[in-house]
Amino acid sequence: MRQKKLDLSLYLVLDPDLCGGIDGMVNTTRIAVANGVTAVQLRAEHEFTRRDWYLAALALKQVLKDTTVPLLINDQVDIALAVEADGVHVGQKDLPVDVVRKLIGADKLLGLSISNLQQINQVNWQKVDYLGIGPVFPTMTKQDAAPPLGITTLAELNQCKQCPAVAIGGINLQNAAEVMQSGSDGIAVISAICGQPNIPYATRQLYHVIEQAKQGIKK
Amino acid sequence: MRQKKLDLSLYLVLDPDLCGGIDGMVNTTRIAVANGVTAVQLRAEHEFTRRDWYLAALALKQVLKDTTVPLLINDQVDIALAVEADGVHVGQKDLPVDVVRKLIGADKLLGLSISNLQQINQVNWQKVDYLGIGPVFPTMTKQDAAPPLGITTLAELNQCKQCPAVAIGGINLQNAAEVMQSGSDGIAVISAICGQPNIPYATRQLYHVIEQAKQGIKK
Repeated sequence: MRQKKLDLSLYLVLDPDLCGGIDGMVNTTRIAVANGVTAVQLRAEHEFTRRDWYLAALALKQVLKDTTVPLLINDQVDIALAVEADGVHVGQKDLPVDVVRKLIGADKLLGLSISNLQQINQVNWQKVDYLGIGPVFPTMTKQDAAPPLGITTLAELNQCKQCPAVAIGGINLQNAAEVMQSGSDGIAVISAICGQPNIPYATRQLYHVIEQAKQGIKK
Repeated sequence: MRQKKLDLSLYLVLDPDLCGGIDGMVNTTRIAVANGVTAVQLRAEHEFTRRDWYLAALALKQVLKDTTVPLLINDQVDIALAVEADGVHVGQKDLPVDVVRKLIGADKLLGLSISNLQQINQVNWQKVDYLGIGPVFPTMTKQDAAPPLGITTLAELNQCKQCPAVAIGGINLQNAAEVMQSGSDGIAVISAICGQPNIPYATRQLYHVIEQAKQGIKK
């Protein structure tokens, strides 16, 4: 099967609590992808059994099957392998990227979370496809998140990158444009889509801001 | 590399809290294996990052390298793949055994936890190498354990098995003999070895009881 192309523009990180379980994540994904989301990550934090992870990943894989949107699995490489997901996203305290690359092979996507200059200077650029840089702003959806970077530090980190990077953490309609203008290749959102009363509208608004920002940057 | 043979007689399940972290698990393993332990499982519950799991598994693999004792990893198949462990042990809420078997291949060991008759009747015997049956007695080392089976139910479950089975849960020097006499192929222990003030002695005592019980059963 040909690998899906990575477009970080509007990267949805699923939260089972905000979405309302597996069915909620599946519905959110279906609607969000139809309205502009370009990549989807399954990130199930606490109180999710590994069987639930697997079932959620299977269901999401099915939803995204006939789309160009890749499915990435957070941390758990075996779940990604089990459902033949398009890739894996790992943090600094997960399996090392060279080990993950060996497990998933050269064709799958691999993303790495970065929170500071030291981490970005240690990236093995041969092994990763993209970075997740954050948290840019304070966030409620990741309990063990590092202190917020702010826009200035985000811009500094973006200048060091040797691969595309998506910004994450507290990003919404109000601050998405400045995040893009800081050299990000896209924004990752959780609560700006998951659990929103009108997901099609919320997604389209975000997509519009990103596209506008991209046009502005090109000029 | 030739696969290590599975001997369930005295199966050590490591607990990082009781052992005192990764170094403690490594030391416990080294001593316990030298005194009769026949299989080792890494089961890191909460508050262990996946990087810690990986580092612990790597260190244990090294300790067991030149022994006949296999290293099994609980739940996390990717950690097992990453360190080329000898096998995986999964529970009822983990990845399904057919999926795990596909990920690890035919040569690796695969164990499955069983807590009742319904579960043992649903086992895919073609895919598993052994069962872990329990908890036999009340246990403090697994928070989400099912109610204790007792010796009578353990014996009933052992009669249904079509592969070797190790009993687990609250097993110690006092009750190990009756557990063996209930048709178990071995006993799995955590606190009867991990954290014991004299690990060589604790291990040898257990080993002695098991060997005696085996002799008694053969007669």
